[in-house]
Amino acid sequence: MPLYQVLAQEGSLSAAQRDRIAQGITDVHLDLAGGLRQFVNVVFQHYPAGCGYNAGVVGAPMVIGGNIRAGRDQAIKTAMLEAISVLAIEVSGISPKDLTVSIGDVRASNAMEGGHILPEPGEEAAWLAKVGPLLGLAA
Amino acid sequence: MPLYQVLAQEGSLSAAQRDRIAQGITDVHLDLAGGLRQFVNVVFQHYPAGCGYNAGVVGAPMVIGGNIRAGRDQAIKTAMLEAISVLAIEVSGISPKDLTVSIGDVRASNAMEGGHILPEPGEEAAWLAKVGPLLGLAA
Amino acid sequence: MPLYQVLAQEGSLSAAQRDRIAQGITDVHLDLAGGLRQFVNVVFQHYPAGCGYNAGVVGAPMVIGGNIRAGRDQAIKTAMLEAISVLAIEVSGISPKDLTVSIGDVRASNAMEGGHILPEPGEEAAWLAKVGPLLGLAA
Repeated sequence: MPLYQVLAQEGSLSAAQRDRIAQGITDVHLDLAGGLRQFVNVVFQHYPAGCGYNAGVVGAPMVIGGNIRAGRDQAIKTAMLEAISVLAIEVSGISPKDLTVSIGDVRASNAMEGGHILPEPGEEAAWLAKVGPLLGLAA
Repeated sequence: MPLYQVLAQEGSLSAAQRDRIAQGITDVHLDLAGGLRQFVNVVFQHYPAGCGYNAGVVGAPMVIGGNIRAGRDQAIKTAMLEAISVLAIEVSGISPKDLTVSIGDVRASNAMEGGHILPEPGEEAAWLAKVGPLLGLAA
Repeated sequence: MPLYQVLAQEGSLSAAQRDRIAQGITDVHLDLAGGLRQFVNVVFQHYPAGCGYNAGVVGAPMVIGGNIRAGRDQAIKTAMLEAISVLAIEVSGISPKDLTVSIGDVRASNAMEGGHILPEPGEEAAWLAKVGPLLGLAA
């Protein structure tokens, strides 16, 4: 956590494009929401042509959904949504109208990394000092 | 947004069945929740046989999850759940006990289309007048 | 509902491992959260190598996300997260730092099984007596 899931039509993103989107989302998350780089996950899920629909007819929507720990200000989330939208449009070349980006707020207490409940936003340092060694991470 | 994700076993839905389900979900959404047809996305994600479990054993559950903008009355959401359930059972021929349909409420301020924060339910017309031309949509 | 989605890299889980994880999650859910075994769904979704990223670089994160009916005490959810984390690490052999487990709370009124709104936690027996026969389930 955070987990960003990118849902896109098969063949619409090359490995190089995925790399840039994954790195970009990771950077946006860390710059704006903070947290630990180690825990930023991005997963691309591709659906076959013919399995995406827009306005009731076959299309090729791209949907990026991020689940992040709750507690960030709305202004931060708005800036994240904007930066991720710009990134995805720029890298993929998708028509803006085919891109949806959303953020879901997940309470830190409802998520674990490696079996340890996540810290609240801002409490990562103390958490990492305690849990990092158990997970083989640098404190 | 809205995004409806249909999770089903590979081979369980033909293209014609997907068409009918996608059109039907889109119609149900617009009839009951309102909003803009252009922004209704439906994506089918298929899992291989053997990757779906029900009650702890291999099965073929079909799960439809919709993320819609928060703010609709419960009665509207109940009617949407019912209409989508009836549609999916009728079109797919699935046993009702294998079908789950759920709706998640996403705050409009937590989602963007083409880089623009979504309007609250009911404020689509003003939003479309402003944003539509930027996205190449009819106002 | 509940629905547990296991997102893992292709080839990282054998059928036997999937069986054990699906059974284990189902047991954890019933032991701790209660509810009806029949309605516990677990679906494995596999992404191709190269489509998962951690910390901005290609990796193989495993992400388990459960959507359960809202209303369970936090202590119960913490115990569920812990038990599912231990199970997934043990069965898959994944490095703990690559595993994320989270739970989302879905209001019972926002979900249907076979076209019937779910009961609140604790009200399953009365619900099953009424709805079970319609779905071909034992009351």
